Amino acid sequence: MSVDVIKTDAVIIGAGPVGLFAVFELGLLDVKAHVIDILDRPGGQCAELYPEKPIYDIPAIPIVTGQQLTDQLMEQIEPFGAEYHFNERVDTIEKIEDGFRLVTDCGTQFECKVVVIAAGGGSFTPKRPPLPGIEAYEDTSVFYSVRKMDAFKDKDVLIVGGGDSALDWTLNLQPVAKSLTLVHRRSEFRAAPASVQKMMDLVDSGNISFKLGQVTTLHGDNGQLTGVTVKSPDGSTFEQPTDIMLPFFGLTMKLGPVANWGLNLEENLIPVDTAKFETSEKGIFAIGDINTYPGKLKLILSGFHEGALMAQAAHRIVYPDKKLIFQYTTSSSNLQKKLGVK
Amino acid sequence: MSVDVIKTDAVIIGAGPVGLFAVFELGLLDVKAHVIDILDRPGGQCAELYPEKPIYDIPAIPIVTGQQLTDQLMEQIEPFGAEYHFNERVDTIEKIEDGFRLVTDCGTQFECKVVVIAAGGGSFTPKRPPLPGIEAYEDTSVFYSVRKMDAFKDKDVLIVGGGDSALDWTLNLQPVAKSLTLVHRRSEFRAAPASVQKMMDLVDSGNISFKLGQVTTLHGDNGQLTGVTVKSPDGSTFEQPTDIMLPFFGLTMKLGPVANWGLNLEENLIPVDTAKFETSEKGIFAIGDINTYPGKLKLILSGFHEGALMAQAAHRIVYPDKKLIFQYTTSSSNLQKKLGVK
Repeated sequence: MSVDVIKTDAVIIGAGPVGLFAVFELGLLDVKAHVIDILDRPGGQCAELYPEKPIYDIPAIPIVTGQQLTDQLMEQIEPFGAEYHFNERVDTIEKIEDGFRLVTDCGTQFECKVVVIAAGGGSFTPKRPPLPGIEAYEDTSVFYSVRKMDAFKDKDVLIVGGGDSALDWTLNLQPVAKSLTLVHRRSEFRAAPASVQKMMDLVDSGNISFKLGQVTTLHGDNGQLTGVTVKSPDGSTFEQPTDIMLPFFGLTMKLGPVANWGLNLEENLIPVDTAKFETSEKGIFAIGDINTYPGKLKLILSGFHEGALMAQAAHRIVYPDKKLIFQYTTSSSNLQKKLGVK
Repeated sequence: MSVDVIKTDAVIIGAGPVGLFAVFELGLLDVKAHVIDILDRPGGQCAELYPEKPIYDIPAIPIVTGQQLTDQLMEQIEPFGAEYHFNERVDTIEKIEDGFRLVTDCGTQFECKVVVIAAGGGSFTPKRPPLPGIEAYEDTSVFYSVRKMDAFKDKDVLIVGGGDSALDWTLNLQPVAKSLTLVHRRSEFRAAPASVQKMMDLVDSGNISFKLGQVTTLHGDNGQLTGVTVKSPDGSTFEQPTDIMLPFFGLTMKLGPVANWGLNLEENLIPVDTAKFETSEKGIFAIGDINTYPGKLKLILSGFHEGALMAQAAHRIVYPDKKLIFQYTTSSSNLQKKLGVK
């Protein structure tokens, strides 16, 4: 939790491909940016939903995976030194005298002249397991993400799931927790083979236990979990005592706080003009899948174009007295200097 | 010269990056395209003006030369089997009952449902040397390009220039011409070293002659050249008899026939809407540097976006009864089949 206010030219909400390329277009025009994303790394949907799946329609790149695309964009925007704030969600945007104040769910505060919403389909939020009464335990005994490992020190921890998140947190929390139990409904895991092997080694050495089955009931009181009922594949059930449960059932996309920012919305999308991609609020832009306009296609390449035109308008806000001369990276030594070309 | 009419869904005018990527976007929607360009190869300005110069602002490609960008686009669009017509300029576009008829300066005729103008700054045209009265000899004794080598058989040929075109045609026409003389104002050449070496070998073996100097005056009658006056670097002059002169002084960009196609123009640009990128004529689209709309930036990446939205509208014209379902290359096996993904 920081009470210092971060002051910058632009805040980009969303570190998907379109948000990342906006760093580039703003950077060419000397507009400094901070990037905020609810995920723990750059790439947005590309990194979250299809890191290994090929994309074929990025111009001049016949085939690229979501992760490669992200890596190539990160390399391209590196010269502009944007600062990234992962695992944070912008909850409020407030108009202030000289721009906007943003506050995240971690309490981080930003003051900026320009806001660029590149939030794709909205916020990725953890899928809630279909367990009656689970809401009562959330944020006290049930957590969908790990903010501080110390919170699980000397606790009996139950992790549920078979993907990368479940496996990674099993490995990371094992040395911290009093005991750690992994529950998964199948003996196959959709996670990096190396992580699966490490987990199995910990089971063999008696450092963690693995139980096959599905959690069906939560037991406890006043938000404090005491245990869960697990149903085995053969239909039998058993009780598993625990203080903490961390279900990792994947992420789902929700519009999230965007709906509360006071912007005009059309069917959960933000209408923008096609010259600046500005929202109903002057100084707040929306690019990529989250915006809508006549002819809109939810293509990554369209978000790139939108970012380029947005940057021209952002420059006019950040530097109201500077005349912008349009230049090309191929011929402008000024732009090449910014790009670190030697 | 062909009198057969080529019938196709779409004709793309211009084989620069934007025209090439239009093949991709149309191809995904089953719209077949022919591509016409006045240059002798794909790439447009990228290939003509900066084949070796790096471009830094193509999204997710931190650095790429104009030639590499062209090559990568050609690889990407290869599955769609577009047909290319190089060294041809579209001179007329005429509305016909079910679309358009186009005729090139070579007499090739096309009939199509959709025309996509991706002509960049217009037509590259050869620079005319500043010689009084040269117009009178053009197309009879003075040529700026070689259409048929046989036309120079048994002629005394004078080639003027020091770039790749001058050198290449010196090498290609030497076996055909009765005699060949190369005139260049300096002894340095801006051409591939291997071509320069071959030319020098031909001089050494007495097969061609090289003269240092500048052509200052043309001599002849009724469009038939008899010789030229050449001024040497020391200021002296001499007469060089010749039947034919081929000046290769580079290319310059002109709007060209676009102005005669009956489209609304604004300062030599074609205004379009931002939903379909359609011109004042329904069924004729304009994408890339040749179009204009509020916010327009002459960026390659903007032309890519424009091509994607144009393709949706083109599909509606070519397949008026088919409902278009928007699909992604990442997830649609239908699109992947078209791309030849195995």
